[in-house]
Amino acid sequence: MTSEMIRKLSAEALGTMLLLAIVVGSGIMGDALSGGNDGIALLGNSIATGAGLVVLILIFGPVSGAHFNPAVTLLFLLRKELGAGVAAAYAIAQIVGAVGGVLLAHAMFGLDLIQSSATAREGFGQAISEVTATAGLLLTILGCSRFGLQATANGVGLFIAAGYWFTSSTSFANPAVAIARTLTDTFAGIRPGDAPLFIVAELCGVFAALLIAKLLFSGEPQRT
Amino acid sequence: MTSEMIRKLSAEALGTMLLLAIVVGSGIMGDALSGGNDGIALLGNSIATGAGLVVLILIFGPVSGAHFNPAVTLLFLLRKELGAGVAAAYAIAQIVGAVGGVLLAHAMFGLDLIQSSATAREGFGQAISEVTATAGLLLTILGCSRFGLQATANGVGLFIAAGYWFTSSTSFANPAVAIARTLTDTFAGIRPGDAPLFIVAELCGVFAALLIAKLLFSGEPQRT
Amino acid sequence: MTSEMIRKLSAEALGTMLLLAIVVGSGIMGDALSGGNDGIALLGNSIATGAGLVVLILIFGPVSGAHFNPAVTLLFLLRKELGAGVAAAYAIAQIVGAVGGVLLAHAMFGLDLIQSSATAREGFGQAISEVTATAGLLLTILGCSRFGLQATANGVGLFIAAGYWFTSSTSFANPAVAIARTLTDTFAGIRPGDAPLFIVAELCGVFAALLIAKLLFSGEPQRT
Amino acid sequence: MTSEMIRKLSAEALGTMLLLAIVVGSGIMGDALSGGNDGIALLGNSIATGAGLVVLILIFGPVSGAHFNPAVTLLFLLRKELGAGVAAAYAIAQIVGAVGGVLLAHAMFGLDLIQSSATAREGFGQAISEVTATAGLLLTILGCSRFGLQATANGVGLFIAAGYWFTSSTSFANPAVAIARTLTDTFAGIRPGDAPLFIVAELCGVFAALLIAKLLFSGEPQRT
Repeated sequence: MTSEMIRKLSAEALGTMLLLAIVVGSGIMGDALSGGNDGIALLGNSIATGAGLVVLILIFGPVSGAHFNPAVTLLFLLRKELGAGVAAAYAIAQIVGAVGGVLLAHAMFGLDLIQSSATAREGFGQAISEVTATAGLLLTILGCSRFGLQATANGVGLFIAAGYWFTSSTSFANPAVAIARTLTDTFAGIRPGDAPLFIVAELCGVFAALLIAKLLFSGEPQRT
Repeated sequence: MTSEMIRKLSAEALGTMLLLAIVVGSGIMGDALSGGNDGIALLGNSIATGAGLVVLILIFGPVSGAHFNPAVTLLFLLRKELGAGVAAAYAIAQIVGAVGGVLLAHAMFGLDLIQSSATAREGFGQAISEVTATAGLLLTILGCSRFGLQATANGVGLFIAAGYWFTSSTSFANPAVAIARTLTDTFAGIRPGDAPLFIVAELCGVFAALLIAKLLFSGEPQRT
Repeated sequence: MTSEMIRKLSAEALGTMLLLAIVVGSGIMGDALSGGNDGIALLGNSIATGAGLVVLILIFGPVSGAHFNPAVTLLFLLRKELGAGVAAAYAIAQIVGAVGGVLLAHAMFGLDLIQSSATAREGFGQAISEVTATAGLLLTILGCSRFGLQATANGVGLFIAAGYWFTSSTSFANPAVAIARTLTDTFAGIRPGDAPLFIVAELCGVFAALLIAKLLFSGEPQRT
Repeated sequence: MTSEMIRKLSAEALGTMLLLAIVVGSGIMGDALSGGNDGIALLGNSIATGAGLVVLILIFGPVSGAHFNPAVTLLFLLRKELGAGVAAAYAIAQIVGAVGGVLLAHAMFGLDLIQSSATAREGFGQAISEVTATAGLLLTILGCSRFGLQATANGVGLFIAAGYWFTSSTSFANPAVAIARTLTDTFAGIRPGDAPLFIVAELCGVFAALLIAKLLFSGEPQRT
């Protein structure tokens, strides 16, 4: 493995780790301070996650592309902008990083490092939510990247902050996130048995985004 | 119909669909989590809508202009930047998309797909609000577009987030939105009988914006 | 009076009118929805005001400079970037617009158009707050304008949103705003008898900003 | 001392003073208005701090670099972008400014100027939080500065707003801030005896950031 590839995989792992630390940590803080009002908790959780994503994409984007998400990596694989071997390595780095981020959040808040979520997130509505959220996230990336990395960073942060509110699933939109969040019994958790449906729905979202991008953006001249 | 026109109309329909899914979905989520405190619900609703609008305009702007709104399309028709046939097709695509977005929000939250709102939004104050909100939105578009599409996207998102708070009508500012929101009996709904006044007020706002733009911006040299 | 000057004064009046409609309107909405929790009301009020300011500066900046504030106009007069006659006309337009904005907010919410505030805002701490807020606002304008109008618009919106929280006076930082807000007995109001101290403190803030800018920025090469 | 160095040190002192006035002031306001709901208080506190930081970095960045933070200054010293004498002078100016900002906040809210905090912030979780927050802040600065000062200003504001939520320590990430916040017995305070652990953890964060930057960014071509 080249040193450049090591740098890329480290960036994916570290970036995804910090993303999960933000998602899970801000959920714990929101829950602790909101006096039982989940709306206030979700405000803190969504603002922190959106703000954090903007920054993480600017930090790690120039190194690895800042996917932090196997669904994003799959999209670029299917668009032939990435090879299968690299894509697989990216996905592994993302999952490892995501799990590490959950542990980091637990450590920061003095909680048991190893947990298993008891939060039910299930049903057809949540599946539709994950398809919508993932397709929307990928269209955000494809659409905003016309305007450069800073626009993509802002766009992703804004889309996910919105997604926490407008989907019933709170927009995981990321299989590595779905896996890692089974390992926390806090505000952001999801029961292990509910994660597979989320992941299947997210993969459907990838294909929906691919199709929409092909229909809508194909005639467009390339910008830089 | 040319394939380019199909792409434009698809972009208008899909973008308006996602806009309504965000408006209605985040209203449902805010209402569900706020413990009866409508201020908290409106914080989530307004932040999600503003953030989502920025992203949708960046995604679909280069394809169709990202009007998502018959009032915007009418403005460009009256400014002769768009033909009557295209404008009519845009408005139809927007209304169809808007209704689809309400259905999508209901599906994501596991609610009855077909609903009718019972929320009264009426009176002279709300009519003045819609005139102000629509004129303000259109001046935002005309004013910010001097600085390019990214500034317009940011400006529209910020203006609508503010409008949710500073007008008594919460700034629909969009006839397609007014029509579609009659079809949801949730936080964002409006009684079918109250929509016509909103739409008339929004059309007045278009003319107010045209007039103000003519008075204020006419002497200005064009930028790119 | 030249037609260009009429355009400038109209922009100042209209922009300040919309600013006050946003400040007062979002205060009314926040107060109505927050269930008595002023923190929630101030969140809505501060987010709406900050977001609205960004947009208003982009709309009206290229026409008149988007001062909307006699303290800003005084700063540019003292820096000899504006003549005394123009400055006086600007200030009058701003005050007239500000009063109009309060009336517009009342009309939008179906309240009595003419009111007088009963909200006490007094004491040494609030005076220090207004000096700090005004000096900070003017340094924001001078500092951000090195980077262009878009940076200034964003900077002013962010500074005022912060100012609502970090000063005990909630950062009026604007004599036209102080005068106009005596005319509303709602969340944003100030007793007529308390406005003079605010205005004196704001004028002190102008001189503080001038002095600091002279000390800190004078050696700096000019950017465009 | 040259007049340029006096300007730089004044900028560091004044910027750090305003930063602390924002951090402590918005904490006092949030606490006063939130009706005992610390989640609402932290929303106001985090939004105000993030927004304020963006503006302060734009104002003072072109003068002194806008460190406002001995950890940032130490990073640049270790990267040999700053001499030891200048770094020491910067740190002193920052600490003096930070203490001044706490006094200013107290004055604005009519509180006793001299206070001592009774708020416990201790334990291993908070130490890990400060390492994470400081390393994250410094990576934000290094990563975003590739895109220029405006991106750095936005990135720092967003990261700190997120950090208030995702770390158990609420992300002081700044030894001058840790020292100054011992002097306020309000929402933002920290017991004097708890500050040393925060400062040690922050210094560990500096070395973590240096190491990560060396591993990840070293192969990267320099941008301007």
